[in-house]
Amino acid sequence: MRQTGSPLGSPGSPADSSGLSRRRMLALVGKTFGGAAMYHAMTSLGFAQASPFQGPPRLDGAPKGTKVLVLGAGMAGLVAAYELRNAGYDVQVLEYNGRAGGRSWTIRGGDRYTELGGATQVCRFAQGEYVNPGPWRIPYHHHGMLDYARRLNVPLEPFIQVNYNAYLHSPGAFGGKPQRYRAVQADYNGHVAELLAKAANRGGLDGDISAEEKDKLLESLASFGGLDKDLLYAKGFVSSERRGYDVPPGGGLMARAQYSTPVARSELVRSRLWQSLAVAHQYEFQTSIFQPKGGMDRIALALYERVKPHVQFHAKVTAIAQDARGVTVTYEDARQPGRGVRQAKADWCVCTIPLSILSQVDLQARPELLAAIEAVPYAAAFKAGLQFKRRFWEQDDGIFGGISYTELPINRISYPNAGFNAQGPAVVLGAYMFGPNAFEFSAMDPADRLREVVRQGGQMHPQYEREFDNGVSVGWHRVPWINGCMATWTDKTRDRHYDNLCAIDNRLVLAGEHASFIGGWQEGAVLSAQDAITRLHAKIKAAKA
Amino acid sequence: MRQTGSPLGSPGSPADSSGLSRRRMLALVGKTFGGAAMYHAMTSLGFAQASPFQGPPRLDGAPKGTKVLVLGAGMAGLVAAYELRNAGYDVQVLEYNGRAGGRSWTIRGGDRYTELGGATQVCRFAQGEYVNPGPWRIPYHHHGMLDYARRLNVPLEPFIQVNYNAYLHSPGAFGGKPQRYRAVQADYNGHVAELLAKAANRGGLDGDISAEEKDKLLESLASFGGLDKDLLYAKGFVSSERRGYDVPPGGGLMARAQYSTPVARSELVRSRLWQSLAVAHQYEFQTSIFQPKGGMDRIALALYERVKPHVQFHAKVTAIAQDARGVTVTYEDARQPGRGVRQAKADWCVCTIPLSILSQVDLQARPELLAAIEAVPYAAAFKAGLQFKRRFWEQDDGIFGGISYTELPINRISYPNAGFNAQGPAVVLGAYMFGPNAFEFSAMDPADRLREVVRQGGQMHPQYEREFDNGVSVGWHRVPWINGCMATWTDKTRDRHYDNLCAIDNRLVLAGEHASFIGGWQEGAVLSAQDAITRLHAKIKAAKA
Repeated sequence: MRQTGSPLGSPGSPADSSGLSRRRMLALVGKTFGGAAMYHAMTSLGFAQASPFQGPPRLDGAPKGTKVLVLGAGMAGLVAAYELRNAGYDVQVLEYNGRAGGRSWTIRGGDRYTELGGATQVCRFAQGEYVNPGPWRIPYHHHGMLDYARRLNVPLEPFIQVNYNAYLHSPGAFGGKPQRYRAVQADYNGHVAELLAKAANRGGLDGDISAEEKDKLLESLASFGGLDKDLLYAKGFVSSERRGYDVPPGGGLMARAQYSTPVARSELVRSRLWQSLAVAHQYEFQTSIFQPKGGMDRIALALYERVKPHVQFHAKVTAIAQDARGVTVTYEDARQPGRGVRQAKADWCVCTIPLSILSQVDLQARPELLAAIEAVPYAAAFKAGLQFKRRFWEQDDGIFGGISYTELPINRISYPNAGFNAQGPAVVLGAYMFGPNAFEFSAMDPADRLREVVRQGGQMHPQYEREFDNGVSVGWHRVPWINGCMATWTDKTRDRHYDNLCAIDNRLVLAGEHASFIGGWQEGAVLSAQDAITRLHAKIKAAKA
Repeated sequence: MRQTGSPLGSPGSPADSSGLSRRRMLALVGKTFGGAAMYHAMTSLGFAQASPFQGPPRLDGAPKGTKVLVLGAGMAGLVAAYELRNAGYDVQVLEYNGRAGGRSWTIRGGDRYTELGGATQVCRFAQGEYVNPGPWRIPYHHHGMLDYARRLNVPLEPFIQVNYNAYLHSPGAFGGKPQRYRAVQADYNGHVAELLAKAANRGGLDGDISAEEKDKLLESLASFGGLDKDLLYAKGFVSSERRGYDVPPGGGLMARAQYSTPVARSELVRSRLWQSLAVAHQYEFQTSIFQPKGGMDRIALALYERVKPHVQFHAKVTAIAQDARGVTVTYEDARQPGRGVRQAKADWCVCTIPLSILSQVDLQARPELLAAIEAVPYAAAFKAGLQFKRRFWEQDDGIFGGISYTELPINRISYPNAGFNAQGPAVVLGAYMFGPNAFEFSAMDPADRLREVVRQGGQMHPQYEREFDNGVSVGWHRVPWINGCMATWTDKTRDRHYDNLCAIDNRLVLAGEHASFIGGWQEGAVLSAQDAITRLHAKIKAAKA
């Protein structure tokens, strides 16, 4: 999922003062010992790796007998409950679903899911197979998530983000025939490098670069683009060592290798397949990037295991009231609308209910907070997991893990990044779409969705129809407890509402990916929760002092 | 390791005739049904994925009681022995070492290794830790290797080839301070894209591209380079979403994000750090790429388990004689030079002894084969595995797996690609060098090598000295049973000697990476062995007929 809105928020917002003082100290070290000492000092302070994550929150001196109510047992709620309980708070968690994790959700064989509208799907995946309808990746810089995986002993494995042998596909390019990522990547780099080398050699850059820089630039372009000695991108050894061979090198007296032929520049540029190459360079999708072994919910469930006695499932919050003395939350049994109404009371409250739902709750708060909650719409998204009878993508197509992209509505196919070479069935992510396509697919009957996803995927993999076994899909705006996939901020709504959304409102503070600049990612929920409880803890201590 | 010499060998070498006839059939399908049908037909024939590997060799009808002697129990010898035995041949394998695998070698705690010159190292790695002094990666297109992993149930895990958070380092660039891969990658793409966009907008490409192509090219350059709306690569949201932030986006009311500043183009071009970016695009290093769980020797050892009763260790071959009736191989006890001399007899022989050693054996063969054996020098290589007390690269530097590159002789540091987040010691590949540097390091005492490797690595990781525990190193030209790391072909030696090296010589055929176009890779050994035994089998059947 993509971050929406500028991550800087309002210009001129105050910098972190503890960071500033550390920076001042570092400047001092730099002046005294020079650059190398500076670098060593930065490393030993753990500062070279700039991150808003500075380790788990330190919540010393929690006043005895203070109770905090946590609404929601997704990543933000679980983090809040876990850290507050570790700090000595009395914690109670109310959760709408009959399971913890929220969007950190993994669907496995036997799981049952009923969406808005009443359609129920029962997953029939084989043992060990799964799909993550929500988050599915943890980038190397999501330090909060990585830290919980470490502290809770949840094993991680590499997620293969880039696979040079996967496909790039557009029905309108190359007669609809999928191209290998490596060929598109090699040809794009090659043509760009050749064009720039030509321009440089013609003097077309003379105003921009010196003669000395030009020589080094040309050398770098040959390396970057796989150009030959004449600085051309042409059929031959260098280009085939990037885009692959028609017949690759072999052993003994096997058929000799045959070079492949680069695609013409104009055809490549027109194909627009280059669009998918940029993903690999995006901060959020750069390698190394991870998945928990066995499903994304493993981290949330590991947190849940530590706070289990404090969590109440099937609790649908209908009202949140607060006064000078405490918070009162009214909830009912989520399985029986209007039945089982009860109240929970506490001194303070951390609310992680998605804004799309919270806006429907009777909430007692400042008008600024209520306005903020109303201001943030939720995006639509759709995912489908497909189980096939065998790993034909590995066995027939040589695609081991990674992602194929297509201009078709399904947008991509993500292959399993574990269990390579295994016999028997396996599950791919067969569609992951946003916006109008997501609405359109979610509007269909679940069986029709799968039919269409299989039909479209079959344009890349002719084996699809024959090998399809069963599947499951989630249209996020039909998910009863969120009605969307993630909060969608704009620069304008950030400026106006973000600080108001995050500020403690008397005895209540909000947390979740919606209260972060890392929208749609678990890390946003984690950092938001850590920040919220750190501020709440300070307020609680100040109130007691 | 790199392939040496052109993979096409002699120009005009005959193409595989069965491939030609299949291609003719496909052309016919294409004419009749158009592109889509063509693509489907290609897939169903398993031809879309062009590979010299066409499945394990089919060796039907082996004459009963025929004995084949296999010399060497590395990947080539093990593949030959396994497939020949499966086909019904009587197989005997002679191996110099006291273990199988040859260069498919994994060093673990407790292992002892004595090199030429007599220095003995005893590895003191912790349980589960290892280093692969030889091959360490299996690319997605090494179908032979992947097929043996599949058939023998050896689990594979992703090797992280590219890590955007790893370092690129040169003592002469950026004051010796290592740069993050993501920053160098983003800035290089950004500057190249901006330069080309400028040249295009000035009309500098008008002879090369049409107006329509120019528009699409500019759009692609913005995507490729992370350019802003003015087609400039500048400090801001777009560039920070690639090169990273000074302060990344956080949650709640944490310090607001701060954009990072791109490095100036001239400084980047001069730094030569761009050199390491090309590796990711090379056919042999493209993702997805794998390692067997637990060490590279797992596949070789799985093969060995299947042919164990036929393998004799500590057998040093000194002479190979052959006549019209059979082959006689003389060998002695490798542990006692000149002692335990014995002879083995067989009908046929597959010799996988490296050419560097075979050239020292008294071999009865055509002059053309003897000349070929003499003609191919072996490259020098050096690797060192370092165990550190903790995973500081993960804990302090946010580097999870992958490779940092440096211009220092150690050349690179490769971090463990499994066990992320684990507490306790872990092993990195601390040096991997070729040529003069490899000779220089191998000439040192093992303890001095490690000291120097640790000293150099400390320029990227200041924690090195403090955290270093123990290590082990292998200088390949000091390895007694090979005296080098891999055969080094040139176009000229290929033209003159390759076919002679691979041709069956009366009752003897050679196999190994040296008899392949995939030099220094296990796949070369596998395909070479499969090709050699397929031809030998055909000859044996013809001789009996």
